[in-house]
Amino acid sequence: MAGSFFKGRFLSLFDYKTEKYIVAKNKKVGVLYRLIQLSIIGYIIGWVFVSKKGYQETDEAIQSSIITKLKGVSVTNTTESGLLVWGPEDYVIPPQGEAVLFVVTNFLETPNQKLGYCAESLKVLDGHCREDDDCEEGKMVTAGNGIRSGRCLRKDENSTGTCEIYGWCPIERKFKPKGPLLTNAENFTIYIKNFINFPKFTFSKSNVFETTDDSYLRKCRFDEELHPYCPIFRLGDITRRAGYNFQDMATFGASIGIMIEWYCDLDKGGSHCHPQYHFTRLDISVSKQTIAAGFNFRHTRYFRNAAGESYRSLFKVYGIRFNIMVHGEAGKFSIIPTLINVGSGLALMGAGAFFCDMVLLYLMKKGDSYRERKFEGSKSKKSTSEEDSVEDRKGATEQDNLTF
Amino acid sequence: MAGSFFKGRFLSLFDYKTEKYIVAKNKKVGVLYRLIQLSIIGYIIGWVFVSKKGYQETDEAIQSSIITKLKGVSVTNTTESGLLVWGPEDYVIPPQGEAVLFVVTNFLETPNQKLGYCAESLKVLDGHCREDDDCEEGKMVTAGNGIRSGRCLRKDENSTGTCEIYGWCPIERKFKPKGPLLTNAENFTIYIKNFINFPKFTFSKSNVFETTDDSYLRKCRFDEELHPYCPIFRLGDITRRAGYNFQDMATFGASIGIMIEWYCDLDKGGSHCHPQYHFTRLDISVSKQTIAAGFNFRHTRYFRNAAGESYRSLFKVYGIRFNIMVHGEAGKFSIIPTLINVGSGLALMGAGAFFCDMVLLYLMKKGDSYRERKFEGSKSKKSTSEEDSVEDRKGATEQDNLTF
Amino acid sequence: MAGSFFKGRFLSLFDYKTEKYIVAKNKKVGVLYRLIQLSIIGYIIGWVFVSKKGYQETDEAIQSSIITKLKGVSVTNTTESGLLVWGPEDYVIPPQGEAVLFVVTNFLETPNQKLGYCAESLKVLDGHCREDDDCEEGKMVTAGNGIRSGRCLRKDENSTGTCEIYGWCPIERKFKPKGPLLTNAENFTIYIKNFINFPKFTFSKSNVFETTDDSYLRKCRFDEELHPYCPIFRLGDITRRAGYNFQDMATFGASIGIMIEWYCDLDKGGSHCHPQYHFTRLDISVSKQTIAAGFNFRHTRYFRNAAGESYRSLFKVYGIRFNIMVHGEAGKFSIIPTLINVGSGLALMGAGAFFCDMVLLYLMKKGDSYRERKFEGSKSKKSTSEEDSVEDRKGATEQDNLTF
Repeated sequence: MAGSFFKGRFLSLFDYKTEKYIVAKNKKVGVLYRLIQLSIIGYIIGWVFVSKKGYQETDEAIQSSIITKLKGVSVTNTTESGLLVWGPEDYVIPPQGEAVLFVVTNFLETPNQKLGYCAESLKVLDGHCREDDDCEEGKMVTAGNGIRSGRCLRKDENSTGTCEIYGWCPIERKFKPKGPLLTNAENFTIYIKNFINFPKFTFSKSNVFETTDDSYLRKCRFDEELHPYCPIFRLGDITRRAGYNFQDMATFGASIGIMIEWYCDLDKGGSHCHPQYHFTRLDISVSKQTIAAGFNFRHTRYFRNAAGESYRSLFKVYGIRFNIMVHGEAGKFSIIPTLINVGSGLALMGAGAFFCDMVLLYLMKKGDSYRERKFEGSKSKKSTSEEDSVEDRKGATEQDNLTF
Repeated sequence: MAGSFFKGRFLSLFDYKTEKYIVAKNKKVGVLYRLIQLSIIGYIIGWVFVSKKGYQETDEAIQSSIITKLKGVSVTNTTESGLLVWGPEDYVIPPQGEAVLFVVTNFLETPNQKLGYCAESLKVLDGHCREDDDCEEGKMVTAGNGIRSGRCLRKDENSTGTCEIYGWCPIERKFKPKGPLLTNAENFTIYIKNFINFPKFTFSKSNVFETTDDSYLRKCRFDEELHPYCPIFRLGDITRRAGYNFQDMATFGASIGIMIEWYCDLDKGGSHCHPQYHFTRLDISVSKQTIAAGFNFRHTRYFRNAAGESYRSLFKVYGIRFNIMVHGEAGKFSIIPTLINVGSGLALMGAGAFFCDMVLLYLMKKGDSYRERKFEGSKSKKSTSEEDSVEDRKGATEQDNLTF
Repeated sequence: MAGSFFKGRFLSLFDYKTEKYIVAKNKKVGVLYRLIQLSIIGYIIGWVFVSKKGYQETDEAIQSSIITKLKGVSVTNTTESGLLVWGPEDYVIPPQGEAVLFVVTNFLETPNQKLGYCAESLKVLDGHCREDDDCEEGKMVTAGNGIRSGRCLRKDENSTGTCEIYGWCPIERKFKPKGPLLTNAENFTIYIKNFINFPKFTFSKSNVFETTDDSYLRKCRFDEELHPYCPIFRLGDITRRAGYNFQDMATFGASIGIMIEWYCDLDKGGSHCHPQYHFTRLDISVSKQTIAAGFNFRHTRYFRNAAGESYRSLFKVYGIRFNIMVHGEAGKFSIIPTLINVGSGLALMGAGAFFCDMVLLYLMKKGDSYRERKFEGSKSKKSTSEEDSVEDRKGATEQDNLTF
């Protein structure tokens, strides 16, 4: 018997074993189970695959290179600087066409600064003084413009004055911008060249129309319908799309984010993958009231006079900083996420069956009869299912003593 | 009966219930099922785990810092600028060693520009005029160099001229580069220092060989085999690896992407995680014909003469822009992705079984006999199944009215 | 029979079919199985959902924009440059407040360089010579400062000299920094304005306290408890938090990484999502001994004398480069990852059951009896398990001939 038994076991390796089901002729649960099956299948197909593209492997590590170039000229006329003509080489900082660039729209020049002695600005709290002892020699003025000389400069004995400092004099005057000086800045155009690459799929694309006609880029303007691949924008349009008026921002400066989004379904092929441009203001949040708004900084130009002495022009420039961010995601069919999603979906069917069992066994009448048929008792074999179930109930008790 | 029954139900909590299988002595389906099982196991082990490292949690949010430094000198001799010696402080823009840097290879200087009146360039279409009325005073020239003075400058009555403008004069002359002026740029060397960090695994590494020998970095050159941790490259080699000739690009400028890739299997330990360098040209795509190629921009140097009047030198520089991008992914064993993959794989076995059932029941002869055995109830057990099933079918109908 | 059979098949579409289980009254395996179930449920709930937030869809593609501004003044006094006052416009490079900025802490000026002839530096190995023939005219000096004139400059016949070069003379002198010159740099403050955006969830936030009180940002200092939304740091504090002494780094320069981390559980709402600041040194790794440490570069200021001849000041600046990196991840409940995790967990229960079956059938006494009951033979019903198994073994052979 044992031998033949092992033979059977060996042969049975290639027998197909399939679960034995019992049929519960209960239309309610039956329909319920079918519904669960349908909803799970619907979820897998509709949601996971159609809507979320769960069959795709995605690459979010987009590589991109950006080159920018501005065009346009503006003229300013101020008492300090006189009549000035501003070209891109002047108003774009830095000039080398990077992804983060600053366009001057307003400025204050403090020309002919020389190193020497003068009074600290009244704005600097730490610079105030009532007597010379308040201005310890050689001590820096916190958030000020120089080093104290030791003297306190006052109109008269009683008034509060400011310490004399050694620094670049004359110091910058107080400046409350009334309006942008580079009034024409709104009409400047920016050319944004973006080249992206999805390393995982070795797919790369540019946002510039591929043509041999050199004049194309000189004439065209971006237009979502007509010229989606002519990435030349008027600054005024950019701010308008961001929801702000250029002139308002130009006075105190601002920060604009230009987001280029590449969502590529590479199963459809690269030609279906287009850049999307979004423009948002970055220096103020929805609740407009914030102190963080505006953007300005200072830079200098150094000169030497005939005697070789240094003097400089200090520029406090307000303007709009453009921050070009590229963001994208490419998806392509891959077997792994597909199987993961299918697998987990199927597993949920098991959960559905489990749920239906609970309903069948505990909520339905005749649940117990189903119980008896579903859970076949311990010593069944030699008996018909009739006695079987009877014995079961006995067996449940006695066997606890029998089996070890 | 009820009591013992509940007792049984309680005790049965710790009974082990296992599906009842029926053995279908059908070698065909049996083998089929085994094959499915094997292929699923093969897929899980071979593909998911070995090839795709599905047992790893990955960190793609690589943090990196890059410092660059160039070495080399070149000499140029032009009519405008005379004999010039270019060092890194001149030809690297910006000079502070960033990840995006520009190396001048060709330039046109327009020296001694002063603010004043001169004729607009003929290149600027908007500047053309036939009479003074075409040059409205105070109006900007679109994409031009200044503001109209109101006069139209022409050779004679009949010819087309250009408007006189107020701007930086003389304006830049038309310039078609014949060849790169910084001929030696090809031999410049760039030192790329990259430091990366995978925050999720708090793993960080540098691409520079760790040694105390100061002269190492002065002498070595990058070599994948010999010196993989000497990140010093000759510009000519970089462009060659990118598949282009340096001199060709140097004339009109170009944009080169240097990708440093860090793929780290941290289960093997950090010492197995090496930087990979890839070089690609970023300004032209595969189909070489494009207008977007080339790269140039303008920058200025401002001077003051003895009288304090400003004048400037305008440089139009062509060159190669290097865009160093770091991209990487670290993987480390994690229980979650492992279980997700195993789990979904097992779920697929269920799918396989389901498929085999279909084959068995609907494609095989004797399928019906298997049906009856697999689905116990309706017409199965010879013993009581007759009445059973009858009752059932009655029950199926009456129950719909009875139960609630 | 057939008719009723097909009728049955049709009806059976809405019959609920549930696996038939056999009850193995084996407490050992029963408890084992329950334990497995519990541990899997525990893993799903505790690990996946509570600890790893496996029910969330995450967005790692954080978009961020950074604006920086420094405040502070320092005075230096050197033989070459005399008494100089350094403001942010001088010591911050580039001045336009970017995410990667360099603060000068030490410098060497080489003033009044003119293009002309002088001896190459002794540091440059390629410049050494014993006779004029070693200095081929017009040949560059590798890693040197100019082009050879053809003459070898030596003290006397026997000594080794250096080639005469045409370049910017006098060339920079050998410089070993003794200590930082901008001693006050430690007290400079940096204001870091960061604005982030998670495109997937269209959630954006800033690290600056939203108030209308302009003086807030002028007075406050960052403090994790008191002022977490006042992003103003003293440079000395930053280096201290990074674990280094400012003065040590200031001499030869260094590179500091400022990481701003945004981990947002958007299920809790945006107000629970705060920036975390981390400071690390980027130019040296844990094993302090490396040649890559330090950071310096050269930049120039160009001048013209009355005769219009160019001369320049060459600045070799050492300093600390701050590299502000933003890194973050937002998570929000999503049905897909939830179901994937639940599904795979359930699939694991199947694995648990499989494991328990193995135990039951192969490790337990009476395993074979369970076998026979679990795997019901082909024509079992009316027979006892004895004959059953016998018939099986016959059937196994004959059937292969019977079924097609």
